[in-house]
Amino acid sequence: MPDAALLDRLRIAVDEGFGRQTEFLQSLVRFPSLRGNEAPLQDWVAREFAGRGWAVDRFSLADVPLPAHAKASPMVDADPAASRQVVATRRGSDPAGRSLILQGHIDVVPEGPAEMWTHPPYAAVVRDGWLYGRGANDMKAGVSAMVFAMDAVASAGVALRGDVHVETVTEEESTGNGALATLLRGYRADAVLIPEPTGHAITRCHTGTLWFRLRVAGVPVHVAVAQDGSNAILSAMKLVEALAAHTARLNEAARSHEWFGAVRDPIKFNPGIIRGGDWASSTPAWCEVDCRIGLLPGDDVAEAMAAVERVVAEAARGDNFLANHPPTLNFHGFRAEGFVQEPGTEAEAVLAAAHASVHGEAMAERRSTAVNDTRFYGRDFGIPALCYGPKGEGNHGFDERTSLEDLRRCTLTIAGFIADWCG
Amino acid sequence: MPDAALLDRLRIAVDEGFGRQTEFLQSLVRFPSLRGNEAPLQDWVAREFAGRGWAVDRFSLADVPLPAHAKASPMVDADPAASRQVVATRRGSDPAGRSLILQGHIDVVPEGPAEMWTHPPYAAVVRDGWLYGRGANDMKAGVSAMVFAMDAVASAGVALRGDVHVETVTEEESTGNGALATLLRGYRADAVLIPEPTGHAITRCHTGTLWFRLRVAGVPVHVAVAQDGSNAILSAMKLVEALAAHTARLNEAARSHEWFGAVRDPIKFNPGIIRGGDWASSTPAWCEVDCRIGLLPGDDVAEAMAAVERVVAEAARGDNFLANHPPTLNFHGFRAEGFVQEPGTEAEAVLAAAHASVHGEAMAERRSTAVNDTRFYGRDFGIPALCYGPKGEGNHGFDERTSLEDLRRCTLTIAGFIADWCG
Repeated sequence: MPDAALLDRLRIAVDEGFGRQTEFLQSLVRFPSLRGNEAPLQDWVAREFAGRGWAVDRFSLADVPLPAHAKASPMVDADPAASRQVVATRRGSDPAGRSLILQGHIDVVPEGPAEMWTHPPYAAVVRDGWLYGRGANDMKAGVSAMVFAMDAVASAGVALRGDVHVETVTEEESTGNGALATLLRGYRADAVLIPEPTGHAITRCHTGTLWFRLRVAGVPVHVAVAQDGSNAILSAMKLVEALAAHTARLNEAARSHEWFGAVRDPIKFNPGIIRGGDWASSTPAWCEVDCRIGLLPGDDVAEAMAAVERVVAEAARGDNFLANHPPTLNFHGFRAEGFVQEPGTEAEAVLAAAHASVHGEAMAERRSTAVNDTRFYGRDFGIPALCYGPKGEGNHGFDERTSLEDLRRCTLTIAGFIADWCG
Repeated sequence: MPDAALLDRLRIAVDEGFGRQTEFLQSLVRFPSLRGNEAPLQDWVAREFAGRGWAVDRFSLADVPLPAHAKASPMVDADPAASRQVVATRRGSDPAGRSLILQGHIDVVPEGPAEMWTHPPYAAVVRDGWLYGRGANDMKAGVSAMVFAMDAVASAGVALRGDVHVETVTEEESTGNGALATLLRGYRADAVLIPEPTGHAITRCHTGTLWFRLRVAGVPVHVAVAQDGSNAILSAMKLVEALAAHTARLNEAARSHEWFGAVRDPIKFNPGIIRGGDWASSTPAWCEVDCRIGLLPGDDVAEAMAAVERVVAEAARGDNFLANHPPTLNFHGFRAEGFVQEPGTEAEAVLAAAHASVHGEAMAERRSTAVNDTRFYGRDFGIPALCYGPKGEGNHGFDERTSLEDLRRCTLTIAGFIADWCG
């Protein structure tokens, strides 16, 4: 735990920097860093980091051997060479000192219908203690926290013995390839902290995620003779129903899961995008549904894929048309495993102490039904992985916002953690 | 019935012109005259007509008082001012002679996935006696037939007493506003022949068509907390199911219909286009479905619209979310009534005689479960309306094609009809 005097110095530094931090977060939000369009923001971030005197490595997903890695996910709708990663390194005084990776993703999901938003989604409006915008909470607030926590540590005069890598990545919302790429690029540390908007709780475990694109054919005919054709939209609906029934069975089985047994329906199935047909008076010749389904820690991704294939094939066999024109499945994004960060790491103890110092109460834990990047560090590279960050609401929805006072407390907690872990 | 000598002269003229007619049809097919993109073809057709010495009137849907007319349909996705109509007039020797309108639509529906086509949809490939392409059969073949029937009549030296208006229209596939516009522009005659691809049968009756766009909202949230959101794609599926059940009830009731009682399931419901959502891992905030439903001759369009509204409202009331976020309905195209061309008109007798002369057998009749433009002439303007034309397959589907030998026979039949009716 940082001593009280140090914490006071950090608190003063965080407070002094908080105006600049809010502006920094507004700048982040004003970049519509949707998938495929993250590079302008990454370039801006790289200049910010370089301006702090950190050594900046900027590279693309095409610069690392992703395709050969078993845990990489396919990128169907995005170009790896256009997806840029930023790793800034602040070297400590002692190569043997405890090192740290601070990592945040800067990709955001689409904002949806503009009319649902009270404030324009990329305006970064501040009102009544909230900062609004797509990505404001998930997770540009966390990115601002890790950067300004580093600034506070520096201006409080804390000497860091260990190295710190400050990383901003892409693809967290679709594949996780950004995080994996930093590891393939060679960055390692004794712990990683990812300040996702967890509401000041530590993420004990998270489910995995599988993406798939279901494509169904139809036989287009004039609707006057619809009985001679086959409607791809109606066929897709049947398959979606079969997948929903499959999900219900998975959730039934999940009741005995060690980590998710107590969470109601932890496996979420979501048909998220649909498109099909081109004329109201022609039976549609195709329908495509982009889906997401969860899996539990311990579930094998290949088995989850096989299960989806089985469910779709069985449903197709029960349909006259689909039996002869099987739907196709394209696993076009996430092939992410679930992950449990077992309790008991020293890194978590240091974070919990910093949290308790700032909040005056013990750090809670959460079990997340969405994936995050910690799985690569913790599961695949043996690095204790802490997912802990600010508080807000509206992630992936409308009127997404982050609480500025919570962000201030979170920044201080992270500063205390850095000072203690690397100091 | 045209006498045998005249029919022989017409046959020779049709045969002599058939090479040019096939090229003319290929030219028509090579224009991708999809909705909103018909003007280049209409300009080409207008020049063709003018070259024949006919008086050409070229005007747009914005040039006539369509919005004020009770039978006009709304145009949501197309600009009336860009939708051009062509009426060419060949004046007869006697203003009291029997006049005729020959009308064909040159708009085509989208071709769907290119890979489903054996030949590219706008290449107008001729093979084994078939001419392939989107619109080749529906109904550019008929347009070529009416134009080259007029040419045959002229080159056979038949003197026409009555006026003939040769019309090419748009919007047949979406609203019928093209046909209605020619009537509002003032064109009238003692009969109209529309050579839709009926396979040499007369269309005794046709169902009406209603288009509507169903839009459902959702509450977008991160799929991790899907239970707090509402998935617009799943909501839309519920409403489509309710509309399918409504259609089944309508078809049950249709069993006692005077004209369609013997046709199995004459009311066709078709969800033809669907789009919704923007991210696999966000619950979709909206889903939109473009639908088509039929109605029987005698059914009131306003009542059919009210029934759709009622079905959607009832289904929404049964759903927790939709009850508070009612779906919206936009009747965005066809508001077309069904129509019966009662038997017994002199025009039909003349056509039947020409058909018998050419085919050596009586003209069959058909009952169509799709709309066509005759309703305006027959129902609203008291003009006997004959829908009769070539033979082919694949309308609104793939590998659409028209039979060239059938087209030749059809052209001769129409030439005989023109000679008899106006001669």
